[in-house]
Amino acid sequence: RVFAGTHLIIEVMEATGLDCEQRIQDAFRRAATLCGATLLHIHTHKFSPQGVSGVAVLGESHITVHTWPEIGYGAFDVFMCGDAEPWKAVEVFKDAFDTDEVAVRELLRGAELLSGPGA
Amino acid sequence: RVFAGTHLIIEVMEATGLDCEQRIQDAFRRAATLCGATLLHIHTHKFSPQGVSGVAVLGESHITVHTWPEIGYGAFDVFMCGDAEPWKAVEVFKDAFDTDEVAVRELLRGAELLSGPGA
Repeated sequence: RVFAGTHLIIEVMEATGLDCEQRIQDAFRRAATLCGATLLHIHTHKFSPQGVSGVAVLGESHITVHTWPEIGYGAFDVFMCGDAEPWKAVEVFKDAFDTDEVAVRELLRGAELLSGPGA
Repeated sequence: RVFAGTHLIIEVMEATGLDCEQRIQDAFRRAATLCGATLLHIHTHKFSPQGVSGVAVLGESHITVHTWPEIGYGAFDVFMCGDAEPWKAVEVFKDAFDTDEVAVRELLRGAELLSGPGA
């Protein structure tokens, strides 16, 4: 194999709704479905006074988020292997949190396996 | 703030024990403790015939892993904000899975917040 999976590092800015566990869980479920992934486990944790962390374990890897609602920022990750389409999650997050201000980096996880460590 | 947290992308290669949920949970707990982080939630999922996915939600963000035991590869993430020390997790994983073949990339999450989207 060339690499193990595609990992998107997604910085969501100028967003709303980032303090709501239900909205985050709904976004994770919609993202998993749209990307063609299988949701195995989902958990969110609400911080006081604000902020939410969320994780979804997928058959194809994971979705995570950590939010700073006070500055409208959410640090999302979408890591998917196989035939799933992680880029489709970006549009879900824009829609779910009412923003177009999103910066995405794409990492190919396990690409070192081909060249070998230290190569 | 300059950035929201430090996110380590850790490729663990030539490793053993990557098919064992207990060993992964133990490594996550040791890593959280050594890094000075607070463990809030931990979950692992065993795939058939092989492979484990694991997530730990921390007060400081998260640890995740997806393993391919058949090639000795584990894709670990350690994302920590605040005063926690994520780099200390790298030594824990080397020890827990009997390897020195580890490649680490460090991402500063939310660095876009300073320069602004599109800047």
